[in-house]
Amino acid sequence: MIIDIHGHYTTEPQALFAFRDKQLAGLAEPARKPTTTDLGVSDEELIKSVQPQIKFQTERGSDLTIFSPRAGGMAHHVGTEEISKAWSRVSNDLIHRICTLLPENFVPVGQLPQFPGASPKNCIAELERLVDLGFVGVNLNPDPAGGYWTDPPMIDKWWYPLYENLVELEMPAMIHVSSSCNPNFHHTGAHYINGDTTVFMQLIQGNLFKDFPTLRFVIPHGGGAVPFHWGRYRGIAQDMKKPVFSEHLLKNVFFDTCVYHLPGIELLTKVIPIDNILFASEMVGAVRGIDPNTGHYYDDTKKYVDQVKNLSETDRYKIFEGNARRVYPRLDKLLEKRGKAGEKV
Amino acid sequence: MIIDIHGHYTTEPQALFAFRDKQLAGLAEPARKPTTTDLGVSDEELIKSVQPQIKFQTERGSDLTIFSPRAGGMAHHVGTEEISKAWSRVSNDLIHRICTLLPENFVPVGQLPQFPGASPKNCIAELERLVDLGFVGVNLNPDPAGGYWTDPPMIDKWWYPLYENLVELEMPAMIHVSSSCNPNFHHTGAHYINGDTTVFMQLIQGNLFKDFPTLRFVIPHGGGAVPFHWGRYRGIAQDMKKPVFSEHLLKNVFFDTCVYHLPGIELLTKVIPIDNILFASEMVGAVRGIDPNTGHYYDDTKKYVDQVKNLSETDRYKIFEGNARRVYPRLDKLLEKRGKAGEKV
Repeated sequence: MIIDIHGHYTTEPQALFAFRDKQLAGLAEPARKPTTTDLGVSDEELIKSVQPQIKFQTERGSDLTIFSPRAGGMAHHVGTEEISKAWSRVSNDLIHRICTLLPENFVPVGQLPQFPGASPKNCIAELERLVDLGFVGVNLNPDPAGGYWTDPPMIDKWWYPLYENLVELEMPAMIHVSSSCNPNFHHTGAHYINGDTTVFMQLIQGNLFKDFPTLRFVIPHGGGAVPFHWGRYRGIAQDMKKPVFSEHLLKNVFFDTCVYHLPGIELLTKVIPIDNILFASEMVGAVRGIDPNTGHYYDDTKKYVDQVKNLSETDRYKIFEGNARRVYPRLDKLLEKRGKAGEKV
Repeated sequence: MIIDIHGHYTTEPQALFAFRDKQLAGLAEPARKPTTTDLGVSDEELIKSVQPQIKFQTERGSDLTIFSPRAGGMAHHVGTEEISKAWSRVSNDLIHRICTLLPENFVPVGQLPQFPGASPKNCIAELERLVDLGFVGVNLNPDPAGGYWTDPPMIDKWWYPLYENLVELEMPAMIHVSSSCNPNFHHTGAHYINGDTTVFMQLIQGNLFKDFPTLRFVIPHGGGAVPFHWGRYRGIAQDMKKPVFSEHLLKNVFFDTCVYHLPGIELLTKVIPIDNILFASEMVGAVRGIDPNTGHYYDDTKKYVDQVKNLSETDRYKIFEGNARRVYPRLDKLLEKRGKAGEKV
């Protein structure tokens, strides 16, 4: 089975945008607030809306996508905390409906109702609701301020109440910023990659996994700049007298394969231990075109992984399926219940 | 000749720190302001202070280092614009003295008296003074706010008066942030790398080099995350209908080799055109230890470049010397004047 752990719902129905407009218009004129959270979208419309993703699954040969709301759409910095709560709920409910309608194609991951300056513990109610609905993980935004980075680093105790719940509920978190309201940071080209790099460095600085030995973070987009600068990070950690990464971070931190060219994937699989790499494509996502050098979609990352030499069959199983089952234990249980147990490796 | 284009004066005399303390103490109590810019440091002390750098040059086989004040020390966000001006002048004067005392080892690059919210044109007087003193380039901080990114992106006309002078004076700029006062960003582990990535993406978004066809930027630390995500950047630019990079950026944007492991340097030299890569080590800098996997210093980047296969002799000449002469025309002229003309390639 080929599991793509990083897909966003970027083909949403217009009704969702209309709801969002009403939410934000309501800030200026309360009469414009949405009066219902029922978007009036039929099951048929939802199924139709994800045909692009299903087409890519079929053409590219992946089976199951871990599916979450559009990352840029979370926009935790916009509006108020109440708006973030309602918006998260509506966005997550759509994901839940799609994954219920198409369980062979999609498994749900949720967004959290974060807000700049608001305690992460305010997200726990939605987190628990997501678990009840069968979600297998969440996206956690390290910068709810949308490019101004005004909340504490992720190793700060500020985040601990949420981590306690993530651990207790066996929910991993993908560390994923949202859109940027800072004109310096293009969202998919700078803010996303910087978010990944920034949090990995925070984790080096702290000792978070001493306090939470079973907390699991996925750092998307191949870990930002980290694998390219693996020597730098090893060296900085060594200068700081931190333990080697296998002890300090690598039981808890994982990287996806959203790197859109073969040399990048070759580097990733060369420097990062195979047990820490999870297949993903971010489709339909940040880059939508076809690479004229290869004739294939930039984000058809399976093609790059398939081309990497020096990967054993076991390595490939881990990248495409086994590691995802380990990092997302609720996914593994769900698949087992469906009669699709993983291999023992 | 092996030219290392990225070395900082990180072995400064105590007198410089004492001056800085007085400057900042003067904010709280004006009587503590420094009364002189004469640090009282002898030539002998200066020569002694850079022996670590000279030892590395000898041991590692580089000849000449393009030498600038400590990047983290610029700290443009601290104090006032007047303080930044005085601090830049004192810091640059030390570099000038060292390069005058040891012209075979060091060539000067300066810091600019930037300040958050202050127009970059306020740096022109110091820039002109640097040219008169024989400096061959400057470090330009894309985020004078030190991790809060409150000034306009580098493609904004805000920066144009400075660019006009850089072009007129044939001075290239290394895009280099300074220390971070944002607790989210470790300075050498996150802020530096993010700064590189951020500015490259800004340059994709804009059309800066249409307005300044001869402006030259060096993006240090191997270009941040950019080479690892080369496919992502090519794809994003393509989605934006921008010209291909060879037209859009690569006549003006260059990357150094401050990447501290062989797989990173292999990737860099594979995806970035050789004409756009300049040898550098950042010594004595961000990472000071020895890699237990290799037995060599992490930042001995010459060892990695030497190990890359598939580089012709011409390629190596370009990386180690030729490209530096092209990007830093004042360096080339200086060397010619000393009877060390470059090769025609």
